[in-house]
Amino acid sequence: MKKVAINGYGTIGKRVADAVSAQNDLKIIGVSKTKPDFEARMAVEKGYELYISIPEREKLFQEAGIEISGTVDEMLHDADIVVDCTPEGIGAQNLLKYKEIGIKAIFQGGEKHDNVGLSFNSFANYDDSWGKDHVRVVSCNTTGLCRTLKPIHDLCGIKKVRAVMVRRGGDPSQVNKGPINAVVPNPPTVPSHHGPDLKTVMYDVNINTVALLVPTTLMHQHNLMVELENQVEVDDIVETLDKTSRVMLVKAKEGLGSTAEIMEYAKELGRSRNDLFEIPVWQESLNIVDGELYYMQAVHQESDVVPENVDAIRAMLEIEDNAEKSIQKTNKAMGIL
Amino acid sequence: MKKVAINGYGTIGKRVADAVSAQNDLKIIGVSKTKPDFEARMAVEKGYELYISIPEREKLFQEAGIEISGTVDEMLHDADIVVDCTPEGIGAQNLLKYKEIGIKAIFQGGEKHDNVGLSFNSFANYDDSWGKDHVRVVSCNTTGLCRTLKPIHDLCGIKKVRAVMVRRGGDPSQVNKGPINAVVPNPPTVPSHHGPDLKTVMYDVNINTVALLVPTTLMHQHNLMVELENQVEVDDIVETLDKTSRVMLVKAKEGLGSTAEIMEYAKELGRSRNDLFEIPVWQESLNIVDGELYYMQAVHQESDVVPENVDAIRAMLEIEDNAEKSIQKTNKAMGIL
Repeated sequence: MKKVAINGYGTIGKRVADAVSAQNDLKIIGVSKTKPDFEARMAVEKGYELYISIPEREKLFQEAGIEISGTVDEMLHDADIVVDCTPEGIGAQNLLKYKEIGIKAIFQGGEKHDNVGLSFNSFANYDDSWGKDHVRVVSCNTTGLCRTLKPIHDLCGIKKVRAVMVRRGGDPSQVNKGPINAVVPNPPTVPSHHGPDLKTVMYDVNINTVALLVPTTLMHQHNLMVELENQVEVDDIVETLDKTSRVMLVKAKEGLGSTAEIMEYAKELGRSRNDLFEIPVWQESLNIVDGELYYMQAVHQESDVVPENVDAIRAMLEIEDNAEKSIQKTNKAMGIL
Repeated sequence: MKKVAINGYGTIGKRVADAVSAQNDLKIIGVSKTKPDFEARMAVEKGYELYISIPEREKLFQEAGIEISGTVDEMLHDADIVVDCTPEGIGAQNLLKYKEIGIKAIFQGGEKHDNVGLSFNSFANYDDSWGKDHVRVVSCNTTGLCRTLKPIHDLCGIKKVRAVMVRRGGDPSQVNKGPINAVVPNPPTVPSHHGPDLKTVMYDVNINTVALLVPTTLMHQHNLMVELENQVEVDDIVETLDKTSRVMLVKAKEGLGSTAEIMEYAKELGRSRNDLFEIPVWQESLNIVDGELYYMQAVHQESDVVPENVDAIRAMLEIEDNAEKSIQKTNKAMGIL
């Protein structure tokens, strides 16, 4: 069993910790927090060894009655790999430390590709991370784009993609984020960074993206317009996406006509935290007009990258050299459809 | 002074009534309501003659202490033209009555084009409504598309338009509408009806649209991708839109980075109801990539069609045969920038 440390037990970190724990070839040897908050307390209650990022704060954890096992440096000393789930920008600082210690490290999409040098998606470029030391799992939005565009690309080739990314203003627990009642072009410049980010894993795709924020917390929503290289029928796309792992077709007419209803469906799956690791695509939206494929999909921003983090570990630690086998193993352990 | 009746003094009707009253060649001879609500009371307080659609309800208005001047049939008898601002679908029923009476009538975008037979936008096809009896002013969204696409089409030709329409869930006072926290593909099928609707006034444009609802009340927001026929620079587009009537360029960096901030700007204009008749286009969003123009704009759904209703009256009553002169006259009276 390879030993995995989680640096930053927040929205993504706690999910990656549980997903890694569910695998039979990996184990969590510790998780870290900077503050003695409810997540820190629950990490200990769940049985994770808790390490602190700022040694000077040991007393705060003691006062809160939260038992710590040591510092992050000590945690890293024992691990084969660390998954850095610290807030955007902190990972780049931590990279220096990881290099000094000589530990392999995975970063999240909030970090810049150029700072890490290599980005990852299980379906697009698993092999490129084989044995590598520092890898970045692309963001939730880019993962969502990749999950559906890669199989379409493989099926019939993609000439050009245009995508409008309607992003959630904040996660459900982010009470200080907005907007409450506005549409915010974000960035107000076009194209947005999402297109270039997709190219860090699907190297040859021609894509331009437009992005905005809206007052919702549940999911991002994407509107895709894909000029195809070769002619196919809508049914071919439906069949392809239907058999693609970590993608699910949903029907508005079955009561899944919005992101809220899709997250209600996720609750029925009975998973921890009601997560939806799959990318739902509205089947009714799939249409080909003048050789151009249109569709709409959604992204559960808190969880869709979690299985990719597990696969990245297997590639970097040279546990499994076949992407498809790692994906299947991860899926099975996580209960992914 | 030509005599105008307003059938339906609601969100659009009350605004058209005020806009018509501001013109020196038109006057309002009456407005109608079905219910003795606050709008009915304020119509009388403003000095409009109030007529009722359902004669049996006269007692309800008496009980509410709201003075009525008669029935809608009596109002129509005295008018040269009626602007029908009744809820979606009612206009089609009223059309039969208008034909029976022999009165000219304007309908709103909620009515189907095929039921009316002719659609109108001041910039796209003013002349086609000259002397006509029944005309439909296209919806707020279609008006928004037309306002910016027409001058671009005139400047450099349009090969193909793709647009993603991010629509407000409801108007600020529509307390029973949603969504509260969801993105709703609406319709979940692609393309949406907005593309075909634009073709009812810009007959030869090639456009596909995708539409969704989000939890906001202030404005719609549009994301446009326009393949151009002839090569121009972004500056040419900026210059063109800058001099286009009823279009305004706004800058995110000047604090106008969202629909909420734009509506705050509208308040500073000091207009009745804080309306924004112009279509704001985010200047930073204007960009040309590989011969394709990208931009983002917003639509104040409660007011952008109001000046078009005034112009439609002039065309149908043969008051002004020059579209540009009617537009200027309407703008001046309404204080449009």
